[in-house]
Amino acid sequence: MTVDRGLGVSAAAGFSAAGVACGVKPAGELDLAVVVGPPGTVAAGAFTTNVVVAAPVVWSRARLAASPAARVVVVNSGNANACTGPAGHRAVRATAERAAAALGCPPEQVLVCSTGVIGVPLDAELVGDGVAKAAANLGRRGGRDAAEAIRTTDTVAKQAGTVLPGGVTVGGMAKGAAMLAPALATAHATMLAVLTTDALADPAALCAGLAAAVEESFNRITVDGAQSTNDTVLLLASGASGTRADPEELAGAVLAVCDDLATQMLADAEGGTKVIRVEVGGAGSAEAALAVARRVADSPLVKAAAYGGDPNWGRVLQAAGTAGVAFDPDAVHLELSGEGQPVVLLRDGVPTGADGSAAMAAPQIAFRLDLGGQGRWACVRTADLTPEYVRLNSEYTT
Amino acid sequence: MTVDRGLGVSAAAGFSAAGVACGVKPAGELDLAVVVGPPGTVAAGAFTTNVVVAAPVVWSRARLAASPAARVVVVNSGNANACTGPAGHRAVRATAERAAAALGCPPEQVLVCSTGVIGVPLDAELVGDGVAKAAANLGRRGGRDAAEAIRTTDTVAKQAGTVLPGGVTVGGMAKGAAMLAPALATAHATMLAVLTTDALADPAALCAGLAAAVEESFNRITVDGAQSTNDTVLLLASGASGTRADPEELAGAVLAVCDDLATQMLADAEGGTKVIRVEVGGAGSAEAALAVARRVADSPLVKAAAYGGDPNWGRVLQAAGTAGVAFDPDAVHLELSGEGQPVVLLRDGVPTGADGSAAMAAPQIAFRLDLGGQGRWACVRTADLTPEYVRLNSEYTT
Repeated sequence: MTVDRGLGVSAAAGFSAAGVACGVKPAGELDLAVVVGPPGTVAAGAFTTNVVVAAPVVWSRARLAASPAARVVVVNSGNANACTGPAGHRAVRATAERAAAALGCPPEQVLVCSTGVIGVPLDAELVGDGVAKAAANLGRRGGRDAAEAIRTTDTVAKQAGTVLPGGVTVGGMAKGAAMLAPALATAHATMLAVLTTDALADPAALCAGLAAAVEESFNRITVDGAQSTNDTVLLLASGASGTRADPEELAGAVLAVCDDLATQMLADAEGGTKVIRVEVGGAGSAEAALAVARRVADSPLVKAAAYGGDPNWGRVLQAAGTAGVAFDPDAVHLELSGEGQPVVLLRDGVPTGADGSAAMAAPQIAFRLDLGGQGRWACVRTADLTPEYVRLNSEYTT
Repeated sequence: MTVDRGLGVSAAAGFSAAGVACGVKPAGELDLAVVVGPPGTVAAGAFTTNVVVAAPVVWSRARLAASPAARVVVVNSGNANACTGPAGHRAVRATAERAAAALGCPPEQVLVCSTGVIGVPLDAELVGDGVAKAAANLGRRGGRDAAEAIRTTDTVAKQAGTVLPGGVTVGGMAKGAAMLAPALATAHATMLAVLTTDALADPAALCAGLAAAVEESFNRITVDGAQSTNDTVLLLASGASGTRADPEELAGAVLAVCDDLATQMLADAEGGTKVIRVEVGGAGSAEAALAVARRVADSPLVKAAAYGGDPNWGRVLQAAGTAGVAFDPDAVHLELSGEGQPVVLLRDGVPTGADGSAAMAAPQIAFRLDLGGQGRWACVRTADLTPEYVRLNSEYTT
């Protein structure tokens, strides 16, 4: 399926969007996005599974639990509105009410997302005024500004879309560069993504399609193993194309867009210089393989070695052995791919002596770890750990 | 209990030690330590719980499972002898046999430890010749050289000891600066520690005392969450003092020495500039509190913020919420101590607005997180994450 990064959150028929500066970010950058669908729009969501959840997550999750009828999404960047107590919840409600007043819908149809610093009170007046300003600036071409407005440490705005043969469009935007290891209700990152489609869709099918897509895309990437308090993925369907897409075809398009957005996140990982694929099989089950792959992908030692182009592959085995998954170290194969032919490093638990230096120096590397048992393969992608990641995260709020 | 860092692994009566250069480290540094007790010495051990275990761990664990009678410890640095296949196991046996021949004991009474790069064949000839050389150099004052010889990236040798009122001595040496998160059979780090005592001790009591000490010391520190393939703690009792120490008193001395060695490891953490204490309570149980404390202590975001002196305390809550422990975010208190008075940052889930900058800038900081429920407190100590840690680990083998 062809994905077009020129198609964003307002590409699907019926949707409009805007991105404005509301003053939450002190330097005056764009920091508030609004996406609006027509009356009758239905939505599905996937949310962080962190015990500590931001106030907007509590709100949006409750709205979608009560009804799929939601047609407005408000996203602010610069403040996560997490760990902000009762005032944080009041700020979300006030935001929904201001949006509802400006756009002529019940507050219950407004979903809210926030991203930024945790534990700092959010100024609901600023956000509310920003919502009013955005409402006056909504347009079919507002998707790009909306994608800009949800950035925190992202160096580039991220959007992707695709058009199905029958004419249905799926488009979306996302942000996420660190505190990124989505485990969205079903995912690990701070990542936010808002997708839209003009398909006529049954809410239950929308939910199922989104859950499956999230599981295979955002939930398979990690920057730092740090699952956020704010992770949210929303999918809104306007029905404006008048076409009832085949549910599998629609789900495939949603996955393609989610996967492309996830790829863009990894390419923009804080301080990252390369992308690392960790493929694991023979772990007894796909779940066990995934647990091992996550453990390797979150290893600071593997990630630092990747940064340095250091073929210290023993760290892959060291990390794999701590995933709580039993396997026979004497049956393990490990292969490293960079540019050119894959290099077999370990065969039946015995090092081959092959030199992985050239492969490890490539900008895209892949470890393929066969634990020697049965079971399907799983893949997790991550970025390298660099001095720049540490520097960025040592001075995020100060 | 007073701990004296002048007392090392050969301080207890009956023990001698040596540290020599055997050529595993190419630059000719000390890289082989031998510790020897008199006939009748008994030993206890705690080993990594990683699924992937180094050949020397397989050997030493099997020896102690069969019999507590062990009176020689051989440790090489520069090569972990892990992921080295059948040749790795043969190298361990050859090492034990060379030591047995040189010291006049059965090979089964020789325990072996290795630390260094994973996946590189270990030259058993080099080690064997080094063992013979060390055997010729054994002395009561050899403990310091032995502590030097087990270093990898440690910048300083680590030893500690104490003398009980009745005259019994407990002394030891350790190494560990990264790949450090011991979970020794009952721990998380690559950390090695060898302790000796001249107490007359029952092997079962020795095992119980060591297990308890390891759990409260090495298993409560983490540098990078990376549990090694080689972690080993050994405790040998010669009985040469002729004194049967009170088991509780002896266990207390072992804990004091382990705790001091753990403290030295953290102070020498790779690239580390400060030590971070994470105290968690009210999690429902001590186990749950420990799980939360570990999660916070292993958070790259919390550790990078500590490095920068950035009071971005929301990351503590974000990490706490991913430990698989349920709690009420609205009941949480968080306090930060640096130098001077503790600063309350969050009270009943509401940020106080207090400025944590000065506290966060201190060289020793402590987060005290009360989750608001019942249950005992747990504490995990860690180091900050710095660009230097990444640099060191991006070029470890190359």
